[in-house]
Amino acid sequence: MNIESMPAFSLSVEALQKIIAALDTDYQRYKNMGLSLDMTRGKPCAEQLDLSAPLLSLPGDAYCSMGNIDCRNYGGIDGIAEAKALFAEYLSVPVENILVGGNASLSLMHTELTIAMLRGVQGVRQPWSRLPNVKMLCPSPGYDRHFAMCEAFGIEMLPVPLLDSGPDMDMVEQMVREDALIKGIFCVPKYSNPTGITYAKESVLRLAEMETAADDFRLFWDNAYAVHDLVDDPVPLENIFDACEKAGNPDRPLIFGSTSKITFPGAGLAVFASSTKNLNSTIEFISKKSIGPDKLNQLRHVLFLQDRHGISRHMKRHRAILEPKFNAVYATLGNCLGNAGLAKWTTPDGGYFVNLDTTAGGAAEVIKMAADLGVAFTPAGATYPYSHDPRNSNIRIAPSYPAVDEIEKAIEVLSLCIKLYAYNSILSRKRATE
Amino acid sequence: MNIESMPAFSLSVEALQKIIAALDTDYQRYKNMGLSLDMTRGKPCAEQLDLSAPLLSLPGDAYCSMGNIDCRNYGGIDGIAEAKALFAEYLSVPVENILVGGNASLSLMHTELTIAMLRGVQGVRQPWSRLPNVKMLCPSPGYDRHFAMCEAFGIEMLPVPLLDSGPDMDMVEQMVREDALIKGIFCVPKYSNPTGITYAKESVLRLAEMETAADDFRLFWDNAYAVHDLVDDPVPLENIFDACEKAGNPDRPLIFGSTSKITFPGAGLAVFASSTKNLNSTIEFISKKSIGPDKLNQLRHVLFLQDRHGISRHMKRHRAILEPKFNAVYATLGNCLGNAGLAKWTTPDGGYFVNLDTTAGGAAEVIKMAADLGVAFTPAGATYPYSHDPRNSNIRIAPSYPAVDEIEKAIEVLSLCIKLYAYNSILSRKRATE
Repeated sequence: MNIESMPAFSLSVEALQKIIAALDTDYQRYKNMGLSLDMTRGKPCAEQLDLSAPLLSLPGDAYCSMGNIDCRNYGGIDGIAEAKALFAEYLSVPVENILVGGNASLSLMHTELTIAMLRGVQGVRQPWSRLPNVKMLCPSPGYDRHFAMCEAFGIEMLPVPLLDSGPDMDMVEQMVREDALIKGIFCVPKYSNPTGITYAKESVLRLAEMETAADDFRLFWDNAYAVHDLVDDPVPLENIFDACEKAGNPDRPLIFGSTSKITFPGAGLAVFASSTKNLNSTIEFISKKSIGPDKLNQLRHVLFLQDRHGISRHMKRHRAILEPKFNAVYATLGNCLGNAGLAKWTTPDGGYFVNLDTTAGGAAEVIKMAADLGVAFTPAGATYPYSHDPRNSNIRIAPSYPAVDEIEKAIEVLSLCIKLYAYNSILSRKRATE
Repeated sequence: MNIESMPAFSLSVEALQKIIAALDTDYQRYKNMGLSLDMTRGKPCAEQLDLSAPLLSLPGDAYCSMGNIDCRNYGGIDGIAEAKALFAEYLSVPVENILVGGNASLSLMHTELTIAMLRGVQGVRQPWSRLPNVKMLCPSPGYDRHFAMCEAFGIEMLPVPLLDSGPDMDMVEQMVREDALIKGIFCVPKYSNPTGITYAKESVLRLAEMETAADDFRLFWDNAYAVHDLVDDPVPLENIFDACEKAGNPDRPLIFGSTSKITFPGAGLAVFASSTKNLNSTIEFISKKSIGPDKLNQLRHVLFLQDRHGISRHMKRHRAILEPKFNAVYATLGNCLGNAGLAKWTTPDGGYFVNLDTTAGGAAEVIKMAADLGVAFTPAGATYPYSHDPRNSNIRIAPSYPAVDEIEKAIEVLSLCIKLYAYNSILSRKRATE
């Protein structure tokens, strides 16, 4: 979007000044309300957490897992059999390729990066930390915590545009073919954070098949929203495990998932799936830092969720809570911004975010204005490596946590700030060119 | 102990042959029993785990922590306030110096080593992984998992004798003063694994005060058995946090603890205590790999254990279960080996192990013979860095898990193997010198 193509660009300076004056009045009105609303994080609301209430008093007396293993005691470094079976079904990966861990998939990703940095990935024992530089492709906009982790490891992040079909694969293929220091790519392949797109089959196959200069190239496949649908018949995600195996690159994918947004974000389970070689290397590494994960919590989850049908039923209940919240975002944006071309936004089939783009250069200013009115959005740039949004236009909206009336209020404020920014920009431009 | 000083050394060859023949008959008798007993690990028994049964259905509806924080949701990277307060009391460390984590203190130690290797410890930003070599002092015999962790990080382990008062401090002081590549020491200061000794006050003070060539020297203070008493009035352990602060080395100690042997080894809590600088550095690091620990499990533990009096009452119940098991070890060893000088063993005031020394050169052979009879002991050498017990005499006995009658049987077998080894050794020696 550029300013000149907006319908409002044809307005006279006087008309624009009148609109802006009215918006300023609205701005003062909201300022006087003393709002305090938080739209920053993809955090389930209390009502969603209530759906998993039975977990709070499980497992009760049923503390043994298959084969009469006492889950209260030490052991079982890769998780209990029932939990592995549940996640094998969940990710469509063979059960022998599954490891179930603690409560954060982020920790499992961090572990994989630590292994790579300190010892090198399995089979290719060149520790990345001994290289002059390590680079990672980062489809953007993307998940800020992936970027923060790369930065903490001193990994150079190379942004790649995230299209509606997934990462720009022409660019990805060329970069990985030419540069052996590019060691991986961070992907949220389903209901991508924040744009909500699901990678097209062709993109998944190209990621599996592409030729890489680095023979220890890895796909960090963060399938965080595998079952987090907001529509009835979502487009399925191609199976990366199978695709890589078929392409002769079985060790390429490192697949992650969790129940953070299925049960409790603060007390869920995380899962890692990969080739037998990768899994063995991981188990060897983590067996030095733990005698096993919290097996009782795994048991608790299996007793509650049971199987993929149980998960599916449970996710429908989440959807019933989330859908009105997403709809409130769309409705409020539609009401306030209409078709004026001041911003565009997504209506994702699942996940936790609505992605909004202002006119170029507007995101930081809009977010700042909204903050002045007491409405917090994810900081501008956060969805890009090094917090650098090259167009300064991306705003991530997380509607899960606030109530519907709070969302409406917050999006009214956002819309107002977008309008103020846009009309002021048009006015300045017109004056400059007069 | 050496063979020549044993009373049995004065026996004639014929008398020795007669004794050995009788022992061989016993050996066959045990062989025919087809035993399968495991004395390898310091693992609580089911009866001990039953003491914490209420945890299995907690927290119920009480899922909020102080300040109405919903423990089901994201957040709280350093643990919930109540859990920090509980462990501050437990370790006698200010609450602001406490971090409560997941279910394994080993993971927290691993995190501290990872920080040191990849980024360098707080204040001294030289990553250890960039040094030509990193060395760690390892009082021995010691905890095999500490040694395995060092080995995995490529850290050179330097064994230091563990005396009844703690590490040989003359040796420690000299080594750390002279070698700047010695970056730390691994200590189990109370009821040391496996010898059961508690560091004397003087040893603790010397560790706090000693001059180190490395300005990023760290005490890895694994206080795993802080409240695991087997007697009424145990000798208290000097407070390392206070001692280091007083000595002007506030950043030196990294203190670890856990509820693994208080509640559930597979689903407990771990704690880290250190200076504000160290803690901040740790929090910064772990905030990149997690959005927070399992807060519900922390809540569960606080609701169950309540405070240090609650912990104290609970530990008395553990003692009631453990004491007869330790007594069974002493009684059986006494009955079978008497004062023949064939072995010496500890009678610790707490902890999880009885430490036994055979005559020099005997441990591996004795453990092998016992294994042939179906009784597993921790592999010979495991209590030393690189599994190298220089005298090949140390055997770790873990009496917590088996039942009393199993312990008696296992220690009978052990005693028999010790006798067989000893008498055969004497016989060979006598023949060689005839």
